[in-house]
Amino acid sequence: MTDTLRITGGRVLQPDMTVEQGDVLVDQDAGTILEVGDVDEGAGDESLDAEGGVVMPGLVNAHTHVAMTLLRGYADDKPLESWLREDIWPAEGELTPEDVRVGAELGVLEMIKGGTTAFADMYFHVPEIADVVDRAGVRARLGHGVVTIGKDERDAHDDNEESIAIAVEYDGYADDRVQTAYMPHSLTTVGEGYLRDYAAQAREHGVPVHFHANETRDEVEPIVEERGERPLEYADDLGLLTDEDFVAHGVHTDDTEIDLLAARGTGVIHCPASNMKLASGMAPIQEMRDAGVTVGIGTDGAASNNDLSVFDELRDAAMLGKLAADDANAVPASAAVKMATAGGADAIGLPGGRLAEGEAADIAVVDFTAPHLTPVHDHVSHLAYAATAGDVRHTVCDGQVLMRDREVQTLDEDAVLERAAEAAAGVAARAE
Amino acid sequence: MTDTLRITGGRVLQPDMTVEQGDVLVDQDAGTILEVGDVDEGAGDESLDAEGGVVMPGLVNAHTHVAMTLLRGYADDKPLESWLREDIWPAEGELTPEDVRVGAELGVLEMIKGGTTAFADMYFHVPEIADVVDRAGVRARLGHGVVTIGKDERDAHDDNEESIAIAVEYDGYADDRVQTAYMPHSLTTVGEGYLRDYAAQAREHGVPVHFHANETRDEVEPIVEERGERPLEYADDLGLLTDEDFVAHGVHTDDTEIDLLAARGTGVIHCPASNMKLASGMAPIQEMRDAGVTVGIGTDGAASNNDLSVFDELRDAAMLGKLAADDANAVPASAAVKMATAGGADAIGLPGGRLAEGEAADIAVVDFTAPHLTPVHDHVSHLAYAATAGDVRHTVCDGQVLMRDREVQTLDEDAVLERAAEAAAGVAARAE
Repeated sequence: MTDTLRITGGRVLQPDMTVEQGDVLVDQDAGTILEVGDVDEGAGDESLDAEGGVVMPGLVNAHTHVAMTLLRGYADDKPLESWLREDIWPAEGELTPEDVRVGAELGVLEMIKGGTTAFADMYFHVPEIADVVDRAGVRARLGHGVVTIGKDERDAHDDNEESIAIAVEYDGYADDRVQTAYMPHSLTTVGEGYLRDYAAQAREHGVPVHFHANETRDEVEPIVEERGERPLEYADDLGLLTDEDFVAHGVHTDDTEIDLLAARGTGVIHCPASNMKLASGMAPIQEMRDAGVTVGIGTDGAASNNDLSVFDELRDAAMLGKLAADDANAVPASAAVKMATAGGADAIGLPGGRLAEGEAADIAVVDFTAPHLTPVHDHVSHLAYAATAGDVRHTVCDGQVLMRDREVQTLDEDAVLERAAEAAAGVAARAE
Repeated sequence: MTDTLRITGGRVLQPDMTVEQGDVLVDQDAGTILEVGDVDEGAGDESLDAEGGVVMPGLVNAHTHVAMTLLRGYADDKPLESWLREDIWPAEGELTPEDVRVGAELGVLEMIKGGTTAFADMYFHVPEIADVVDRAGVRARLGHGVVTIGKDERDAHDDNEESIAIAVEYDGYADDRVQTAYMPHSLTTVGEGYLRDYAAQAREHGVPVHFHANETRDEVEPIVEERGERPLEYADDLGLLTDEDFVAHGVHTDDTEIDLLAARGTGVIHCPASNMKLASGMAPIQEMRDAGVTVGIGTDGAASNNDLSVFDELRDAAMLGKLAADDANAVPASAAVKMATAGGADAIGLPGGRLAEGEAADIAVVDFTAPHLTPVHDHVSHLAYAATAGDVRHTVCDGQVLMRDREVQTLDEDAVLERAAEAAAGVAARAE
């Protein structure tokens, strides 16, 4: 007999974004959903109370740099280039593998508390991050970020080799909850030859490619000037746009590029808070949706957000999407919630995002009894515009209960917070 | 001997936006701050524990329609005009005085839980709202909103008379915690003669004027076409721009108007979430700050936000301000926090907004021990970019403890939620 978990008494968000009263029965051994709706009385070895709440797919944070939680609030109110060069990169240079482990613990703890069950991460010291994912019980697509500009040939080569080696080694780690990708930082920070050669290697090893694209105008103009084509056309020439790949940001994308993304099936990860905070611009999300592009949502790193709440982010996506389109009908509540769940899971190629029989049992239960979620005319509206990470009551991933009644089960919250504060103080002192 | 309250062990946000370890001693009878910093051991009849937290001025929600909490999520994803005409106004037509009381209770409850101690409100059935303010212990500047277009002369006259009469009757109510204003809805929904005559009456009675201005392009263009001047020049001609008055939104304001606002000392209430959600546009907040305009922050009504969290709103203000200015240095964290405290209090002419001797004892204590507020490199950054309404631990207004350890003392939370759900269901059923 398999172990089963029953989530009882809630209203369940269906894949079509309607909400229906019902229970969810989970096969904990397989990590999948057995039934949604009228579950037999008595079924379920273990139960989670969802009375007065909404049972929804676990949120997907489809682009982040999780260990940057240690640099939360370290430097603000600066544009991308100077923020990276003057503050972030020098501080990151001080991060030890142990710092990255501690930062990842803090980030994953925060995500579990906010109902996030899966994330895509580009960083370094990936083995430490993979270990945290394993212990914490979430899912992730991890990769080692590559930068070649300013490096000699040997270092540039080694950085790419490490990204491929890590991707190969950790793909399928933690009972398959860890997947990987080759992760060149961007089209302007990694040389053409490396992009072409290592993307081809990624294909041979069966791992996708993830990179930043068209985040600021400064990433677009040099490519257009030098090559006479748009950045995503260049990426396509290099073989970086397949239906397994996904790009972060896509703020400054034109119609040709949007059509190209749709034709190739390449996902776009929208990071509205980071794009606002760094004054990068407004991504044309409604146009991408109209063209059929798969869009997920990411918080980006905590230094440019400054939290890892996907609820904040999907609200920002719905709001900024309207402003970008100059149309209050654009990116409605249901679209934002979908991008933060199924959209993200599909874009980064992980299971989850839909509550239905046979789907991965990645689930968040959101309590709806707080003043800011009262009254309820429309559950999906509340998920998009009023719910916060703090409203999440239980979090389940791969059939396991990661948080029950706001108590995280897989990480020791107090110990993680203490280690993180200490590690962050050390990094700040060394970077001075 | 006066009753005193001591807030102990926290870090105190100073008026210059620095943060210093210290206690705050409050005169509860006078409702003012006696000391900030090194308070004598043993002083304080009652105490609030702020260990691990930041003690900051109570937040000011400088533009809202508080009873619209009953319509939270009732209609979304539509532009201002059709949203008002097709959904909101018909539903509002069904609101009884008792509904408005219940909606105000829900809104004030939500605000107290989020550390908000003062608000400015334009609505109807103002006596019911004033009663809730009295019982709940917060501060407010209240007014009856006037619309004359589509009304015959008698109804239009009566509506204005009511706005003046309410302002006169309730100014100073609830031990002076209620102040009032004459509140014509906007420059395009109230006729010129009424605006001129009743603004003059407001002056005679010593109450300010509050109205919506330049929220959408549709409010600007007709005035420019008809009168050959900008809306705020027209408002100035009518005597609506004094240093006691304040306008909501100001999204589409040009340099001439910004200079006029600065010269007159008229406050602007920025409502970034509403402006995004209704695709109204981006207010030039950094330019207003540069010109010396007093800027406060408002959530607008819950139907266009969809919550009354000033923390969400000040984060949006910092983020959107950068995008509007195309400059990541614009509207830095400290400016956003200041707008949400002293800026709002000054703009709407209520006490509060600064923790210093002699100032009003309107205070929020924010707990900083959650994962999303760890580590702490910069307290003000966290207040702007990472803190949420749910992180507020205690709320104090006029020296009285309104919330202690997340338990609201002046309203019965469960009863308010129950009444609100029932009232909202009734309104929705009647509006069908």
